[in-house]
Amino acid sequence: MANLLVDERDVKFVLYEQLRLDGFAQSDLYSEFSREMCDMILEAAYKFAENELWPINADGDAQGALLVDGHARAPESFHKAYNLYCENGWPLLSVETECGGQGCPIVLYCAVMESFVAANLAFTAYPGLTLGAARLAQKYGTDEQRSAYMHKMFSGEWGGTMCLTEPQAGSDVGALRTRAKRNPDGTYSIVGNKIFISSGDHDLCENIIHMVLARVEGAPPGTKGISIFIVPKKRIEGGSLVPNDVTTTAVEKKLGIHGSATCALSFGEKDACVGYLLGEENSGMKIMFDMMNEARLAVAFQGLGLASGAYMQALHYAMDRVQGSHYSQMRDPQAPKVPIIEHPDVRRMLMWMKSVTEGVRSLLYYTAFCVDRARTAADQAEAERHRGLIDLLIPIGKAWASDMGFRVTETAVQVYGGYGYCSEYPVEQYLRDIKITSIYEGTNAIQALDLVGRKLTYKQGALFRTFIEETEQVLNRIGDNPRLESVVTLFREARARLVEATTFFAQKGFSGDFLIPVLYASPYLELFGDVAVGFMLLWQAEIADAKLEEIYRNAGADTPEKQARVASESADAGYYCGKLASARFFANTFLSLSAGKAKVIMSGERSAVDVPVEAFLRR
Amino acid sequence: MANLLVDERDVKFVLYEQLRLDGFAQSDLYSEFSREMCDMILEAAYKFAENELWPINADGDAQGALLVDGHARAPESFHKAYNLYCENGWPLLSVETECGGQGCPIVLYCAVMESFVAANLAFTAYPGLTLGAARLAQKYGTDEQRSAYMHKMFSGEWGGTMCLTEPQAGSDVGALRTRAKRNPDGTYSIVGNKIFISSGDHDLCENIIHMVLARVEGAPPGTKGISIFIVPKKRIEGGSLVPNDVTTTAVEKKLGIHGSATCALSFGEKDACVGYLLGEENSGMKIMFDMMNEARLAVAFQGLGLASGAYMQALHYAMDRVQGSHYSQMRDPQAPKVPIIEHPDVRRMLMWMKSVTEGVRSLLYYTAFCVDRARTAADQAEAERHRGLIDLLIPIGKAWASDMGFRVTETAVQVYGGYGYCSEYPVEQYLRDIKITSIYEGTNAIQALDLVGRKLTYKQGALFRTFIEETEQVLNRIGDNPRLESVVTLFREARARLVEATTFFAQKGFSGDFLIPVLYASPYLELFGDVAVGFMLLWQAEIADAKLEEIYRNAGADTPEKQARVASESADAGYYCGKLASARFFANTFLSLSAGKAKVIMSGERSAVDVPVEAFLRR
Repeated sequence: MANLLVDERDVKFVLYEQLRLDGFAQSDLYSEFSREMCDMILEAAYKFAENELWPINADGDAQGALLVDGHARAPESFHKAYNLYCENGWPLLSVETECGGQGCPIVLYCAVMESFVAANLAFTAYPGLTLGAARLAQKYGTDEQRSAYMHKMFSGEWGGTMCLTEPQAGSDVGALRTRAKRNPDGTYSIVGNKIFISSGDHDLCENIIHMVLARVEGAPPGTKGISIFIVPKKRIEGGSLVPNDVTTTAVEKKLGIHGSATCALSFGEKDACVGYLLGEENSGMKIMFDMMNEARLAVAFQGLGLASGAYMQALHYAMDRVQGSHYSQMRDPQAPKVPIIEHPDVRRMLMWMKSVTEGVRSLLYYTAFCVDRARTAADQAEAERHRGLIDLLIPIGKAWASDMGFRVTETAVQVYGGYGYCSEYPVEQYLRDIKITSIYEGTNAIQALDLVGRKLTYKQGALFRTFIEETEQVLNRIGDNPRLESVVTLFREARARLVEATTFFAQKGFSGDFLIPVLYASPYLELFGDVAVGFMLLWQAEIADAKLEEIYRNAGADTPEKQARVASESADAGYYCGKLASARFFANTFLSLSAGKAKVIMSGERSAVDVPVEAFLRR
Repeated sequence: MANLLVDERDVKFVLYEQLRLDGFAQSDLYSEFSREMCDMILEAAYKFAENELWPINADGDAQGALLVDGHARAPESFHKAYNLYCENGWPLLSVETECGGQGCPIVLYCAVMESFVAANLAFTAYPGLTLGAARLAQKYGTDEQRSAYMHKMFSGEWGGTMCLTEPQAGSDVGALRTRAKRNPDGTYSIVGNKIFISSGDHDLCENIIHMVLARVEGAPPGTKGISIFIVPKKRIEGGSLVPNDVTTTAVEKKLGIHGSATCALSFGEKDACVGYLLGEENSGMKIMFDMMNEARLAVAFQGLGLASGAYMQALHYAMDRVQGSHYSQMRDPQAPKVPIIEHPDVRRMLMWMKSVTEGVRSLLYYTAFCVDRARTAADQAEAERHRGLIDLLIPIGKAWASDMGFRVTETAVQVYGGYGYCSEYPVEQYLRDIKITSIYEGTNAIQALDLVGRKLTYKQGALFRTFIEETEQVLNRIGDNPRLESVVTLFREARARLVEATTFFAQKGFSGDFLIPVLYASPYLELFGDVAVGFMLLWQAEIADAKLEEIYRNAGADTPEKQARVASESADAGYYCGKLASARFFANTFLSLSAGKAKVIMSGERSAVDVPVEAFLRR
């Protein structure tokens, strides 16, 4: 199955050949995660994705989550899968062993998630949000709070949510109005309305624990006056659960992820909603931001997973679907019909999807791997270096993976042609589902502002310099390998343009002209994403080239003809050839545009903001 | 209303200031179409779009077309609108006066259609296909066929369809298998299955006339053996209508245009389906191709209309929606909140949508105008010139408008943020509806192959040279106007790269290396689209600049400050400022990438086709 939704060979290439995950077997933290162990987990995950999640993906989409008598219901078919998900222990995979989990490396957890979201994004919203909420309780909760909530959430027995957004406070979180009034017993009374709450209500669990941002009376305005509260759907009173005055007022009808219950919640309609402060008053944003990297990385992996699923489906379709004859025989009506993968334009689309998907996979696995390397680092400096890379790469990965993932699903629809537009085939659902990833956990515009405003400026560009050093190491290893010369040249040129654009922003910032960096933040992030993904594919090409040379040498394949035969007969050789093709194709298609993209950013063109609003429309 | 879905001011700028449509009042053919007359028609169309089509757009989407007891039903709400559409005479707008129509200029008809599709694409599928089928009967039918079918279709009393696609024959039309057997009475018995038939069955009309591609016994294989038949749903026998053995086997569930009945039809299940040959045997493809330009131009206008609707909705939303404070005050929690159009990133997205929509509008209106100019041409050479431009620009317009229109709807979703993902707001429907325009009437890959394989090669590049001459005229008129210098420079550079890429393809073709043009046809079309749209905006900038200078001169506004005041006070001045901004923004954003895009095309990179299929996936 793996190969129906995720290219298992490519996943293993990233994990073992590029990142050398098996090296962790020497670390204290991950000593149990030998390659055999990791393979076993991946295999189980792919089976679960194939046998349980994928078969209910279309059904969950068709049924949708519904509001019935004031309560949200997950699609009927999700219930069995959710119970199995918990029974199999998937919720505990990444949870620390001291909390009863398996404590697996984050990059492995992410690899598992890639296959789960590829199979059924809507389903994963339920356990996904729960884990995030549980992590908050784990990190900031009192002992009492941890024992009351954390374990039941980690196991999946109870659900969890993050309640940030309000009708007037989306990207501008500081504008939220939900109020918290101190009660004499140390609890708080919560009153307010939240919208767009993923898994805000459902019938998969007996209780749901909401993490609610609210403002305590008298708190300062803006983000500095926000606190965070644990607000259970049903609160624990003397060993039993009693309703806590949380009302589900709506389940949104949406473009995609129909099976995920996106709820509007009303807290304290009867003034009987009790919240428990998490951490200290007015530290809500700090606490929430602490989870931001994890949440945004998760969304980036959603972009990857759906791109992967759509690409693999389109690939299988193109290999099976026979229509038209080879372009060289187009005028001969008797010419044999061929699978559409033989048509150059279809092949080009598939190679586009392949290179983007593989490049994003590498970038995101690398980012997740940095989390593991920070955790297992020998010293503070090394840990700091990896944390810096995470901070820098997360907004890029989140935005680039979701935006380009959307293009991958769009391209999948084109490969299917008319069938791609029909619900009978799976790609139109991918297109609808993936769009949310450009929006939630901070729209991609917010990611770009975070990159330009925070990550680039941190310690006068220290994070950016670390990234450049990482690329330099790979370039040094490649040296003047003639087989990679064209890719190296395109990459060096693109990197130089990125450095120029970055310096340009820095100069603007120093001189107090913030408009240009703000106006061009999104195009800049796109350029950075191109270079970062191009870097990953170059790095992979270095490895694939060496392996391929070794295979050729061992097979005595010393002519192009012999090498071609080896490549079509040996699974490994074929894969490495494809990997080199991804790198060449991506460099040519994306990195050739870097000079132009940098020129746009540095043009100083500001028509958009210089003209009055009336130039758009006079009402 | 116009300004809710279509920017009426911009439409009138194109029609009267750029194309000088009112000049037609001097022609014999269009002498009745004075500016007053055109304005009246536009006003009536915008009212109809606003009052009748737009209010049922979301309902048609939610209800969808349904198959009930073997018969397709249009959404209930479409019935009243369809009757009004016919009563108001809209089906006859572009039909020749000698056939009982109004005989309006095609560009005006297209302007009307832009507003109708912006309001409700699914609805327009019903009358749209009917007109196409009626045109076939008009042009190729016998007198008997014309009198039997044409008038009832022109009036909208009967519907019409085009039946090309079969399960194994989509892009490869030549593979179709529907058979036609000669009957002794000169009719034919039709047997076969067709899929993806827009308006293939519905309950808006009492009868539907299918134009069916089929193969007569003994016909040659491939496209040369295809004939076209008139196959009524109910045939006329002795003055009454009797069923003609056409069965509706399915109504497709689709990503979008839910209200449009996309049917699978079975002809001759009981061997009792009678077809009437249109034209001669084996001339079906020629006849169908003759209508292809019209059909593809219609789809291009669908791309434009949906982009326009999505842009205008997002623009209104961004002007009304208040959230966040101005970027220069972001750290002050007390700073006033502003409409999101004040945020630079939102403004940039809107300017992107504005420039693309206006540029596409100009390109498509210009193409439609060429149809009118060919019709009213003083001599054969002039007519030929305009027909050449039509042939060249239609594949570009169809593919670029639909692909970039899709990006406009995607950007509209981003402007709305989380709300954009919710069905309660209109933009997610635009995103779903517009996707079909990249697929039907020839996928965009087919358009690219048509451009590269037929249009570029026609008379050794004669059409391409005509296009270049057209651009040269505008450049000559602009001369060295310093206010347009930056746009002119970017355009000249982009045009030079397009010429290079075109020459490169020509050289490849001469040397018999067709792979590269076939492999890079789609990227080439994209580059051509950028240049063609950039040309249109440059041409518009020339006009807007002159008008603006005149306004400033008349107002005595001789300083930037005075000019800014005039621009925000005078509707015309504000509009022209916006037009200049569109040209500058587009040139900077799109044309700056032309050098890179040409480099990609001319790279010769062919990894995608050089690697074996096993490099993608070993099964």
